[in-house]
Amino acid sequence: MIILIQCRDQVGLVAAISGVLAAEQMNIVSLREYVDKQANHFFMRVEVEEGEEVPELQQRLQQVLPPDAVVQVNPQPQKRIVVLVTKEYHCLADILIRNYFQSLGATVQAVIGHYDTLEDICRRFDIPFHKIEVPSSSRVLFEQQVEDLVRQYEPDYIVLAKFMRILSPEFVAKFPMRIINIHHSFLPAFAGAQPYKQAFERGVKLIGATAHFVTDHLDEGPILSQQIIPVSHSATTADMVKAGKEIETAVLARGLRLVLEDRVFVYGNKTVVFE
Amino acid sequence: MIILIQCRDQVGLVAAISGVLAAEQMNIVSLREYVDKQANHFFMRVEVEEGEEVPELQQRLQQVLPPDAVVQVNPQPQKRIVVLVTKEYHCLADILIRNYFQSLGATVQAVIGHYDTLEDICRRFDIPFHKIEVPSSSRVLFEQQVEDLVRQYEPDYIVLAKFMRILSPEFVAKFPMRIINIHHSFLPAFAGAQPYKQAFERGVKLIGATAHFVTDHLDEGPILSQQIIPVSHSATTADMVKAGKEIETAVLARGLRLVLEDRVFVYGNKTVVFE
Amino acid sequence: MIILIQCRDQVGLVAAISGVLAAEQMNIVSLREYVDKQANHFFMRVEVEEGEEVPELQQRLQQVLPPDAVVQVNPQPQKRIVVLVTKEYHCLADILIRNYFQSLGATVQAVIGHYDTLEDICRRFDIPFHKIEVPSSSRVLFEQQVEDLVRQYEPDYIVLAKFMRILSPEFVAKFPMRIINIHHSFLPAFAGAQPYKQAFERGVKLIGATAHFVTDHLDEGPILSQQIIPVSHSATTADMVKAGKEIETAVLARGLRLVLEDRVFVYGNKTVVFE
Amino acid sequence: MIILIQCRDQVGLVAAISGVLAAEQMNIVSLREYVDKQANHFFMRVEVEEGEEVPELQQRLQQVLPPDAVVQVNPQPQKRIVVLVTKEYHCLADILIRNYFQSLGATVQAVIGHYDTLEDICRRFDIPFHKIEVPSSSRVLFEQQVEDLVRQYEPDYIVLAKFMRILSPEFVAKFPMRIINIHHSFLPAFAGAQPYKQAFERGVKLIGATAHFVTDHLDEGPILSQQIIPVSHSATTADMVKAGKEIETAVLARGLRLVLEDRVFVYGNKTVVFE
Repeated sequence: MIILIQCRDQVGLVAAISGVLAAEQMNIVSLREYVDKQANHFFMRVEVEEGEEVPELQQRLQQVLPPDAVVQVNPQPQKRIVVLVTKEYHCLADILIRNYFQSLGATVQAVIGHYDTLEDICRRFDIPFHKIEVPSSSRVLFEQQVEDLVRQYEPDYIVLAKFMRILSPEFVAKFPMRIINIHHSFLPAFAGAQPYKQAFERGVKLIGATAHFVTDHLDEGPILSQQIIPVSHSATTADMVKAGKEIETAVLARGLRLVLEDRVFVYGNKTVVFE
Repeated sequence: MIILIQCRDQVGLVAAISGVLAAEQMNIVSLREYVDKQANHFFMRVEVEEGEEVPELQQRLQQVLPPDAVVQVNPQPQKRIVVLVTKEYHCLADILIRNYFQSLGATVQAVIGHYDTLEDICRRFDIPFHKIEVPSSSRVLFEQQVEDLVRQYEPDYIVLAKFMRILSPEFVAKFPMRIINIHHSFLPAFAGAQPYKQAFERGVKLIGATAHFVTDHLDEGPILSQQIIPVSHSATTADMVKAGKEIETAVLARGLRLVLEDRVFVYGNKTVVFE
Repeated sequence: MIILIQCRDQVGLVAAISGVLAAEQMNIVSLREYVDKQANHFFMRVEVEEGEEVPELQQRLQQVLPPDAVVQVNPQPQKRIVVLVTKEYHCLADILIRNYFQSLGATVQAVIGHYDTLEDICRRFDIPFHKIEVPSSSRVLFEQQVEDLVRQYEPDYIVLAKFMRILSPEFVAKFPMRIINIHHSFLPAFAGAQPYKQAFERGVKLIGATAHFVTDHLDEGPILSQQIIPVSHSATTADMVKAGKEIETAVLARGLRLVLEDRVFVYGNKTVVFE
Repeated sequence: MIILIQCRDQVGLVAAISGVLAAEQMNIVSLREYVDKQANHFFMRVEVEEGEEVPELQQRLQQVLPPDAVVQVNPQPQKRIVVLVTKEYHCLADILIRNYFQSLGATVQAVIGHYDTLEDICRRFDIPFHKIEVPSSSRVLFEQQVEDLVRQYEPDYIVLAKFMRILSPEFVAKFPMRIINIHHSFLPAFAGAQPYKQAFERGVKLIGATAHFVTDHLDEGPILSQQIIPVSHSATTADMVKAGKEIETAVLARGLRLVLEDRVFVYGNKTVVFE
């Protein structure tokens, strides 16, 4: 069982929380704690051994904590996700494979795209694929259709697996901190479109990828995971795109795992990640 | 202030410990906890904000914990180290530089070697250098001289910074978990002498280094830190030795930092490292 | 077009080879050269721009080179592979995805296993799956069946994608330097079975994987690719297995890419890899 | 002996160059070649075994190459460098250590700073330290003094080892592609001042460093080397600065090694690095 708590920091929080758990004879398997001293904010993640159900645990914890405390006990164990795609397959295929072999930590409910390029791979895994029929140039109608399609699956998270359309602040506001994107760059370098072209022209020796929550500001949401790979002068833009696919796949997989294992707090524009 | 606790695991340990701290109005800055389920053993590291001295804190913690608990409150802030060397300079020079600029987290009391190759660099930093005059073939006398030299400086840790002589179990037993070695290999691969020659002949694509505590069994003590670097087919043994120096320096520096910041528990033949 | 040459080293080899290419007005896109000074052996890989076919290029190169020279001009562009598996899916699934999206650099002809666990995933990708019916305890008959199944597909390479049976020297001798294995360890550390259990007990801070050609000696063939990931004290054997799957998949994918792009020479028990 | 050649690409360059070497019975130890197809430019680095002096080798090579060819034979074996610093010691100390142990591939002629913080460490290594007496606010006079100090040592390269003053385009133009800087960021992310503060506020999960040649445009010169290290949410700006020092030191050391071993071509705003 996993317990996530965040609140204003004060003396005695760990004692208060662990006191409640000890009174219930709950054995702590793992405890991670962090205090943001600048913001005076406290974060804690506790894993306790499975035992009898403790029906009022959340209330009991809430009672010993400050009024602003957000307490989550055992967040929904199997999450539901919907994946948005364009034409590139690498991130989607990785998610479908993990979903099929039940190692994703979530179930893929559906895939939504504005091309039909990836319909066949979804069909092979018996995952519903929906093609958005509205052209993306009609942004309001386009996003309305996306929203309608997404909502029928009631997902916990929407994953943008190389979805090459910008979602409006209005759309994003409907799913706060529930949209996860993979950006094909080591942000904040090369934000925006064509990062590999930019990287090639700048002659960088590393390229990277960033998984992040989507907020109003393009490519500026809280970062979940980043990684890089070395590139040499001999890498063309096409080579960088190819190498980038490997790193994008790995970084999105890791970002998703962290979120789906309830290891991430979002606070301001940053994340606290208890690995 | 740092508090390190280890004991047999049982329900309520975190509550007991944090309860004592809360009663003293001590604010927890950082708390790391780990339970080895196989061994049923509990480890905790707490950093609390500096405040008034709490004279009987250790006893109060001991009172609420099982009898086997080992509690360390605020371990000796500035450690003392003695460095043993042969001829290679890279690890020693790194330690001397950090010592000189007060970023080592310890003070280097002396350097001891069985050649005088590194005497000059020590002199330049005003660090006493002692040459062992007994030949290392007379192991008992050799180690007796090392021990005599070491003991006069009362070091917390003895650092083998490319000390190319094997210390006997008898010597090691006198400084249990207080001798830190850098091994020029990603252990357990290529234990023993000439690891780079072995690595070259095996055609490996990575070489590494390992910082570890020294125990009776050669190259088998608890591991503190490991890292690798890629090598290609074109690397000769000499190239690997050269590249190895960079990684050895970095790995020993990291292992030392972890120990000197009181982030390491030793348990059985393994370490618990709270980074 | 790719040209691979190896022979005894002598003065003038590059001039001789490039002279032939220049006479044909062939433009060199990329040239990599390596001389093993210990073995006095020369290796060269040249990529030239596609142009008109040069029918007797191989002979012309052979004429200007020492008699022991092995010259390959434009090795078979699309290779054929057969994959052997047991129950673990991660490496196979990665290969199937790349095959499906035509980014593998080879075509998967068939998958052969001694359990039917992975039959369904193959069926979904329209790849023939053959179950070996002979129990692996009857090694001679077991291997005969594997050989019969493999041979009907005339593969360039046989990929052991977590195939957990040891192939006999007799079998291996029939496919010299054509069997590629992924070993779940950073060889030579933890050769043999249960490397993650060994790694856990040793308390290592890194785990790795190795892609290599299979030779008579278990886990000792020429190494293609190796990589590692850090692990902490809190990783159980199961956690290491899980993390290991990610690194195994990536390392095998890289090793395969290098072989399929004709970037690898094998010489003695080592590889020359021109990335 | 090392030969560096760059020129407009055309068919037959490798044959022409290697033909000259073969005629002189020169044995090629290592040959690296790259063609920038977009720019139609050819780069080659050849290492040949030491033998008798070949007095007119450069002319002979020049004769068989296009008129625009730049041919360097055996560039000055031991380079001379001057180091500019402010107050941070880590990069300077690493250079001084390598210089002292003759593993730098160059000799440090002098260190120039606008504080006297690092005078003592230079004195300990018998390296002249010059304090710039003109305040950096008087840019013209300040740079004149720097130039005067630098010029008396006739350095091949000027190394900015955490020199926290911006040099004017006029100054830079006097030493084209001869000034090497370490930037405390993974460029182009966080160009400019206070990159760690920016990184902290952005909540990045990696920080990096970049070694580059200095050109007119701040932080935009050709990149030599880049590397990153992971950071977690718990890293404060001060922690990032501390971790950054390690990576800065390593990246500058690597960038310098590449330049001093004659492994770098500069072309446009990019480098070709033959490792």
